[in-house]
Amino acid sequence: MLMTGEQYIESLRKLKTRVYMFGEKIDNWVDHPIIRPSINCVAMTYELAQDPQYADLMTAKSNLTGETVNRFAHLHQSTDDLRKKVKMQRLLGQKTASCFQRCVGMDAFNAVFSTTYETDKKYGTHYHENFKKFLEMVQREDLVVDGAMTDPKGDRGLPPHKQKDKDLFLHIVERREDGIVVSGAKCHQTGSINSHWHIFMPTQAMREEDKDFAVSFACPTDAEGMYMIYGRQSCDTRKMEKDNQIDVGNPKFGGQEALVVLDNVFIPNEYIFQAGEYDFAGMMVERFAGYHRQSYGGCKVGVGDVLIGAAALAAEYNGAQKASHIKDKLIEMTHLNETLYCCGIACSAEGWKTEAGNYQIDLLLANVCKQNITRFPYEIVRLAEDIAGGLMVTMPSETDFKSDLKVGRNGETIGEICNKFFAASPACTTEERQKLMRLIENMCLGAAAVGYRTESMHGAGSPQAQRIMISRQGNIEGKKQLAKDIAGIK
Amino acid sequence: MLMTGEQYIESLRKLKTRVYMFGEKIDNWVDHPIIRPSINCVAMTYELAQDPQYADLMTAKSNLTGETVNRFAHLHQSTDDLRKKVKMQRLLGQKTASCFQRCVGMDAFNAVFSTTYETDKKYGTHYHENFKKFLEMVQREDLVVDGAMTDPKGDRGLPPHKQKDKDLFLHIVERREDGIVVSGAKCHQTGSINSHWHIFMPTQAMREEDKDFAVSFACPTDAEGMYMIYGRQSCDTRKMEKDNQIDVGNPKFGGQEALVVLDNVFIPNEYIFQAGEYDFAGMMVERFAGYHRQSYGGCKVGVGDVLIGAAALAAEYNGAQKASHIKDKLIEMTHLNETLYCCGIACSAEGWKTEAGNYQIDLLLANVCKQNITRFPYEIVRLAEDIAGGLMVTMPSETDFKSDLKVGRNGETIGEICNKFFAASPACTTEERQKLMRLIENMCLGAAAVGYRTESMHGAGSPQAQRIMISRQGNIEGKKQLAKDIAGIK
Amino acid sequence: MLMTGEQYIESLRKLKTRVYMFGEKIDNWVDHPIIRPSINCVAMTYELAQDPQYADLMTAKSNLTGETVNRFAHLHQSTDDLRKKVKMQRLLGQKTASCFQRCVGMDAFNAVFSTTYETDKKYGTHYHENFKKFLEMVQREDLVVDGAMTDPKGDRGLPPHKQKDKDLFLHIVERREDGIVVSGAKCHQTGSINSHWHIFMPTQAMREEDKDFAVSFACPTDAEGMYMIYGRQSCDTRKMEKDNQIDVGNPKFGGQEALVVLDNVFIPNEYIFQAGEYDFAGMMVERFAGYHRQSYGGCKVGVGDVLIGAAALAAEYNGAQKASHIKDKLIEMTHLNETLYCCGIACSAEGWKTEAGNYQIDLLLANVCKQNITRFPYEIVRLAEDIAGGLMVTMPSETDFKSDLKVGRNGETIGEICNKFFAASPACTTEERQKLMRLIENMCLGAAAVGYRTESMHGAGSPQAQRIMISRQGNIEGKKQLAKDIAGIK
Amino acid sequence: MLMTGEQYIESLRKLKTRVYMFGEKIDNWVDHPIIRPSINCVAMTYELAQDPQYADLMTAKSNLTGETVNRFAHLHQSTDDLRKKVKMQRLLGQKTASCFQRCVGMDAFNAVFSTTYETDKKYGTHYHENFKKFLEMVQREDLVVDGAMTDPKGDRGLPPHKQKDKDLFLHIVERREDGIVVSGAKCHQTGSINSHWHIFMPTQAMREEDKDFAVSFACPTDAEGMYMIYGRQSCDTRKMEKDNQIDVGNPKFGGQEALVVLDNVFIPNEYIFQAGEYDFAGMMVERFAGYHRQSYGGCKVGVGDVLIGAAALAAEYNGAQKASHIKDKLIEMTHLNETLYCCGIACSAEGWKTEAGNYQIDLLLANVCKQNITRFPYEIVRLAEDIAGGLMVTMPSETDFKSDLKVGRNGETIGEICNKFFAASPACTTEERQKLMRLIENMCLGAAAVGYRTESMHGAGSPQAQRIMISRQGNIEGKKQLAKDIAGIK
Repeated sequence: MLMTGEQYIESLRKLKTRVYMFGEKIDNWVDHPIIRPSINCVAMTYELAQDPQYADLMTAKSNLTGETVNRFAHLHQSTDDLRKKVKMQRLLGQKTASCFQRCVGMDAFNAVFSTTYETDKKYGTHYHENFKKFLEMVQREDLVVDGAMTDPKGDRGLPPHKQKDKDLFLHIVERREDGIVVSGAKCHQTGSINSHWHIFMPTQAMREEDKDFAVSFACPTDAEGMYMIYGRQSCDTRKMEKDNQIDVGNPKFGGQEALVVLDNVFIPNEYIFQAGEYDFAGMMVERFAGYHRQSYGGCKVGVGDVLIGAAALAAEYNGAQKASHIKDKLIEMTHLNETLYCCGIACSAEGWKTEAGNYQIDLLLANVCKQNITRFPYEIVRLAEDIAGGLMVTMPSETDFKSDLKVGRNGETIGEICNKFFAASPACTTEERQKLMRLIENMCLGAAAVGYRTESMHGAGSPQAQRIMISRQGNIEGKKQLAKDIAGIK
Repeated sequence: MLMTGEQYIESLRKLKTRVYMFGEKIDNWVDHPIIRPSINCVAMTYELAQDPQYADLMTAKSNLTGETVNRFAHLHQSTDDLRKKVKMQRLLGQKTASCFQRCVGMDAFNAVFSTTYETDKKYGTHYHENFKKFLEMVQREDLVVDGAMTDPKGDRGLPPHKQKDKDLFLHIVERREDGIVVSGAKCHQTGSINSHWHIFMPTQAMREEDKDFAVSFACPTDAEGMYMIYGRQSCDTRKMEKDNQIDVGNPKFGGQEALVVLDNVFIPNEYIFQAGEYDFAGMMVERFAGYHRQSYGGCKVGVGDVLIGAAALAAEYNGAQKASHIKDKLIEMTHLNETLYCCGIACSAEGWKTEAGNYQIDLLLANVCKQNITRFPYEIVRLAEDIAGGLMVTMPSETDFKSDLKVGRNGETIGEICNKFFAASPACTTEERQKLMRLIENMCLGAAAVGYRTESMHGAGSPQAQRIMISRQGNIEGKKQLAKDIAGIK
Repeated sequence: MLMTGEQYIESLRKLKTRVYMFGEKIDNWVDHPIIRPSINCVAMTYELAQDPQYADLMTAKSNLTGETVNRFAHLHQSTDDLRKKVKMQRLLGQKTASCFQRCVGMDAFNAVFSTTYETDKKYGTHYHENFKKFLEMVQREDLVVDGAMTDPKGDRGLPPHKQKDKDLFLHIVERREDGIVVSGAKCHQTGSINSHWHIFMPTQAMREEDKDFAVSFACPTDAEGMYMIYGRQSCDTRKMEKDNQIDVGNPKFGGQEALVVLDNVFIPNEYIFQAGEYDFAGMMVERFAGYHRQSYGGCKVGVGDVLIGAAALAAEYNGAQKASHIKDKLIEMTHLNETLYCCGIACSAEGWKTEAGNYQIDLLLANVCKQNITRFPYEIVRLAEDIAGGLMVTMPSETDFKSDLKVGRNGETIGEICNKFFAASPACTTEERQKLMRLIENMCLGAAAVGYRTESMHGAGSPQAQRIMISRQGNIEGKKQLAKDIAGIK
Repeated sequence: MLMTGEQYIESLRKLKTRVYMFGEKIDNWVDHPIIRPSINCVAMTYELAQDPQYADLMTAKSNLTGETVNRFAHLHQSTDDLRKKVKMQRLLGQKTASCFQRCVGMDAFNAVFSTTYETDKKYGTHYHENFKKFLEMVQREDLVVDGAMTDPKGDRGLPPHKQKDKDLFLHIVERREDGIVVSGAKCHQTGSINSHWHIFMPTQAMREEDKDFAVSFACPTDAEGMYMIYGRQSCDTRKMEKDNQIDVGNPKFGGQEALVVLDNVFIPNEYIFQAGEYDFAGMMVERFAGYHRQSYGGCKVGVGDVLIGAAALAAEYNGAQKASHIKDKLIEMTHLNETLYCCGIACSAEGWKTEAGNYQIDLLLANVCKQNITRFPYEIVRLAEDIAGGLMVTMPSETDFKSDLKVGRNGETIGEICNKFFAASPACTTEERQKLMRLIENMCLGAAAVGYRTESMHGAGSPQAQRIMISRQGNIEGKKQLAKDIAGIK
């Protein structure tokens, strides 16, 4: 029932997903050097689920079917499940040092599950049944589903219905007997291409005038009218340099973002989870964002573990591992990283049961979690760059290290000269040093920095979004009363 | 069975506790204006336990007797109990804005319970039975027990047995058939005077040569040979200025520290929990410290709640509550405070069952918790001072505000002039403003700053102690391996 | 011509300054234990000016008279003078570990000098001549002049003329042939009582409707109708505990703040520097604030030097001076302190000549300076508390250390017990340790914390005031153009 | 006499400099797309020197010849010169948003000038004369000279003479009548390729056993036996993507680093500045490092200006420029950037005259300057990423924006779809938004991040190097004495 990593990759080949990059249609995108690393990340979510030592974290018993499912397709049944989610994410971060992309769908499942329940209760709709059936299929077939939320938004001063070009917010363009037709796009979509299906959700709370924009549904990734344009990342084309595979840093894994376009896509009734119930758009957004802000307390911590390990190794390779300032910086990195983990665990442990029966995280603490995520990875990166030394940005290419071209007076080749002068301490070979420096570069400035830094900043909402939630959830009036009681102010 | 606050205070009067302050013996220390606020804090742990709305947090079912006991006397039976402990501490922090002192004993109970179990297992001693009987009495009589750990230590370069004056570490001076005689002292003891009993524990890991210093036992606070010398706090004597009660800031609650001296005190066998088993001294210290580092993720958060509330109120009294920078500072204070709470909750949720059956916190996360406690309260204080404005340190005395002495050309009194020029916004009276400014002063620079700042720094171990534990627990070798796996280094 | 410290103190006795504290008139305020330390600080500005080794910093050649004057009474003639001002302030901070109060007047001199020049130029008034004559007297008689700016302000949402009680802003109540009559008050006045004269300045930019509030003048401290109400400081009354002089921490020096009331005070024409020219109120405020924000880059750095030294000494007394984390914290404290100094020096070195001929600091950099002052002293304090250890807030009183009361089984006295258990490392006596711990307490939580922390926050304008200036002076449009040029955006 | 930018570029073509990249010899390196941007930076140092409005900053009157020279070739004659140096560097940073590379030589000139003077005085050598003649030529011909210091160092636990491979430290392999022969390499060399000459200096203080490694000399960049291997930078190959010039971010300017190898290079006597006087190696290093730590207080501030401007523009393009949190972040970026500038200015203003007559910066403050440079640019980058939004790392390639490939149901092209969904606010065109996002990416993660981040960290010495100097220069003993004086400790 649970696919292997290999099976997952093969399953992608059967899809007719439309992918564009550098102005061209990429037909064999599964094997494209720029795309494949992100597929490998998702494959890892399958591989680890096959490994008995991780069974407790990577799988769960479905409340819908009673079968064992990949935890990424699970509805959280307890705060224990919420904590295991975070631990699974940390594990995946450790194993990929990248964004492994499958969380977005998991967070969408749990948000849509509880929101549709409450929508149906108010409006007598059947979205919750729709969703349960959909999720049963996902669990049964062990599919990857992307969650898509962020609209292009156009002029940010205007609500959706006032936009000159309505497509700047995903919306219903036609309502039919058997379904709806939707148009628009979602930006910055992580893991879109390598998903089997997508769940689309509204991008913000909506008012009545915007009810056509209050729309949520599932849709196969290769649906007619749907296509993706791939986004550039720092150092993306290094993956295409065949002779410089070491220079990639993380040769196997990576992340991806794309613009996902829906051009008059038809959605049959059974896959619709919201279609005009504008007063539930905000709930869906807030619940999804809450889960996703929790997620970062797992995945980024796992990535941080790798960077801390890499920095410790760099210190060793540089022969500096005993310096007290190095030890202290590694402690600080660990301290910051574990503080993030504390936030991920705490908002899980303080979770609560929704009306629909699955568990939601504590909203205040999840926002506090994400807010710290917008800060500490940057400081961890800074400390990693400090420990690594400047070599990570001044080393010649792998080609140089392997070159036979003679340059020295005694016929030394470029490769020999590079190996002579970048010679490692006895703790490592020069090639190992190269690999390590490139990994740190990858995480601090290269392709993985997109996930570890910028995504930490803006994924699941930019910092100010969390501050607004912290303000709302912080119960400042209650705190004022505490102060009055102590000071004896009536 | 559970005492009321009033009963607790009366119970103290029956003790013959010896207290010295300003060179004098204080006979009625229960009503002494400098001491009483700290007694009121402890009384609050009784009062809240009587309040049904707090029953779930403040009380628990004893695993020893099956009876309902104050949670401060409870052995944690689950990670749920560990989280409730933190929440109870936050509640008490909110209600007292001070150190309420009763945690030390609770943390000692749980550390001694599990350590004696393992000691007995190895040595066939009966410390665990001793301890259980002692704790049953504590639970039954609802007593306050102080936990005492920090020795004066003398020359820090020397182990206990090499100290010129052996008393600088608490130690066994005589072993008798029926018990032991101990001498020495414990420094910085919070809540010593207002406890009924004390549990003494060793101050650090010990070696064989120091086995006389590996000693733990319970002892009533008024035992023959035991006495306390009270420590000074910032602004302590304001509590004795009868006309300036507003100037105290927190008129009802406060903390206390004292030097506790044991001058040849006899300890009967039944109250001994360690007497030479030096290889368990470190375990007792580490477990106690672990619990106590968790504790700060509750109590200091509660105190922080009051300070945040006070700052928000000050902004309102100053008419500045709508300024965006003020709102942002309150959000930052909340964010930092809740980050601390996350750490307290996380190390609880990740707790584990000891061999003896009670629950221990996660050591790495508890140290991360305490490390943050050595930082964030200082920043919260800084932001509170920012919002409050300079008035908190330049306002005349309450006496001035009430003075009838004429000073103006038209016969205005000092009191009238003060009320004229320190007039509050319509949101408050001048007296309310006075009270609030003095509360903030109390928490930022005054008596409560001792607890909220310096104790946050050094209580449960100074920052470097946590860094050493973080280093030990951080599994840096495992992290190096993660980096090697990603980079393809064999 | 330059007074000695002793002469200065004697000169104060001749004044009829009216001082109220704790509801009473203090007649011999010169010898009052709470006030005297702040007088000693000012006396130090005289004493150092007599010392040849400091002549270059402490004195200058007057551009008005050609005579040697105390630099505190000098008009800056160059950027070199501006830098020397900062160095003089650092020196005084080092020698007093307190706010030495005489800067306010110096900053007022320089602001009023250039503002009156430009006022006269526009309005044909004679304020500049008035001021020069006044300053010649100050220089000749070597007087201390306080600068007074901050009004009570009442309802902050209303301009001065709309206040219900006009006195909440200092204003002209009557214009006569020979002068004006003024009423109102100034809050938080540092060094008011121990000044011979005062310069009053408006508190903010004014509009035409507020022209009666646009008023500046000089006035002797004991003018008819003028009086002060002393503000409380943390631990203020310790100075009155005769047996606990060590507990004061800084036994000789301290700061002061007071409410200064002007109750229908007559100001003769020759001492008026602004009387209705509302369009110059803002210039006077901004120039004064600019100088005063520079000042903090000197004085607080000097105080920081003492605290760094005290922390280093505490490490030594604790036997911890060789620990790498201690060394690192001392480096960090030094680094932060010298960063502040850099700001003080930089805004001086980049100063510019006013139309009147004296030198003004660079406004952007002076605001940057002050903004850092609202942050780094707090962190320096935090690190000092870390290094010092908890003893600074738990040590018994000096009385206990000296007490003969017997408490031990062998007749040991309280004093002996204190000296036994708080015994210092061989590097110091117990009394030296006491003195040092109390000094650190004094600077971190006690009376000097008012100057080193809260005054750093709010003196010369609260942090947000600097942010507004940084925003205005930061030339963001110019920076946008730079980015456009680089990116090739037309 | 002063070359134009164009003349400079042409002058490079005449050199036979040997450059290797990606395993190949680059013959026309002047026009190589990866190298040219760094040449353009240096050309800017010529162009601005031709512009009358910058004459005061960009040029100076040579103390050697009395002629007007480019300030980059000038010996500082006053603290004014030192401040102008910093301002010139800020200007260049603003105009290139990159490392413009010519500072290293300037800092070498000033360090070698004063060190050779003192060496000659002790040893009767003629290095100072050699150097003056060399510098006269440099000034006359307006040449770029690189300063080369950092050796590969090999096993860091061993001194130079104990290294298995002596070449890991640059050294004298033969002493001849007419000169010396040297071998070795310098790592991380900024601006090496586009310099006419190099000055080589020892990498650290040396002992007698290492006297062959205490060597300094000038050498033309195309000397026989000298060659460079180019280092990789983040996103380096984007410069070679002809269709994606916008994606480069900073299309005109960039930095470079290379490994510079000296393979038995002969140095005639007249170009030698040190050849065995090991006791002056440390002085040369320390003086050079001091100047170079000052430099960063100029150049990085200029680059920061561009990034602040870019962030402000991004806020405008996103329609978010009025949000209070955006304004506040821009203020914070400005504040941090100007704090760095304060440090650059302060260590200049506090400079001192060497025995040789040129001016040296204040060593403590220059180290404080550089220490802040290892922190604040990282925070400025973090804030820029916050303001910019995620688009900077998810935008499709320029090729996509221009593609005619049809993808939509109505025949829309990829280019049209990109322009539709990434449409800018009315404040900008989509192309302008692209350019701006790519510029920010370039500075935060791309090629310029190497200079703005990693070079800020390690250039002129890694952070710990500054901490050691701060510790040495911080006069901690003097500060202890201050504390003793205040506390009354004898």
